[in-house]
Amino acid sequence: MGFFTKDIKTMDDLFVHTLRDIYYAEKRILKALPEMIDKTTDPTLKSGFQSHLKETEQHVSRLEEVFRMHGVEAKTVTCPAIDGIIEEAEEISGDIADKEVLDAALAASAQAVEHYEITRYGTLIAWAKRLGRNDCASVLARTLEEEKAADAKLTKIAESKLNMRAAS
Amino acid sequence: MGFFTKDIKTMDDLFVHTLRDIYYAEKRILKALPEMIDKTTDPTLKSGFQSHLKETEQHVSRLEEVFRMHGVEAKTVTCPAIDGIIEEAEEISGDIADKEVLDAALAASAQAVEHYEITRYGTLIAWAKRLGRNDCASVLARTLEEEKAADAKLTKIAESKLNMRAAS
Repeated sequence: MGFFTKDIKTMDDLFVHTLRDIYYAEKRILKALPEMIDKTTDPTLKSGFQSHLKETEQHVSRLEEVFRMHGVEAKTVTCPAIDGIIEEAEEISGDIADKEVLDAALAASAQAVEHYEITRYGTLIAWAKRLGRNDCASVLARTLEEEKAADAKLTKIAESKLNMRAAS
Repeated sequence: MGFFTKDIKTMDDLFVHTLRDIYYAEKRILKALPEMIDKTTDPTLKSGFQSHLKETEQHVSRLEEVFRMHGVEAKTVTCPAIDGIIEEAEEISGDIADKEVLDAALAASAQAVEHYEITRYGTLIAWAKRLGRNDCASVLARTLEEEKAADAKLTKIAESKLNMRAAS
């Protein structure tokens, strides 16, 4: 993308660019989750990550559906935000000696990922509606609800169990 | 931090590490906001960013207060997540030709920043309480409320005004 030309000229261009950004992010998350599943030793957190891996596959398919509905090519643009969030997750987890502390950190890192997705899907839904694409908005809204539910579930696991074990 | 040693051994170490991560993030945001203020042409968004710049200065001071309360040195650790989020904001805004579309993108980028802060402060508050530091939790909670309010304000400006102008 453009150091010399400005490629985003309309709201529709911005919508498509941001769809491609979150498409990259979802695919990046698909690659990161198996390692997080391997690292966690808490069975509830592990199974939460496993369900979210399946949901993430669905999120990728839904984005492909939105690209088709909107008549544009399903392709990615590099998303430095998710790269940074995942790099940080990997750095912190590589730096932790204790497995209970590691589980607490992994849950927090996963919540940082969820929050990035929540903000991007929220924006995309608002833009789709404004562009008269309620059909796209409604597909994106299903994913947003799942991201919010995943975040709430992580809060519950962390506060009811992981943080207590990690601090003891 | 540790490629060869694992420096985070306890929940307290993880809490301090994450405080230093968000301390870096707040300082990075302090540097990024003036450029966002310059770029926006919408007066409501510009004044929103200006108020948030003042709040961010307070958030830095509050973190220094928490470091003092907890008896540890106020220092930063590099936070690849905020670096990535801000890099993405700068890339996208450099790629937009139309000023109304740029305002919509700037608001969305600022919301991505807010969401990163919301998740980190949420985690820090839960960890502070678990470590018996309700005093630190209550200082951090004041900042969390301001980050949530800033995000809600951005949603309101975007949906009531910016997105409509950008799509027209």
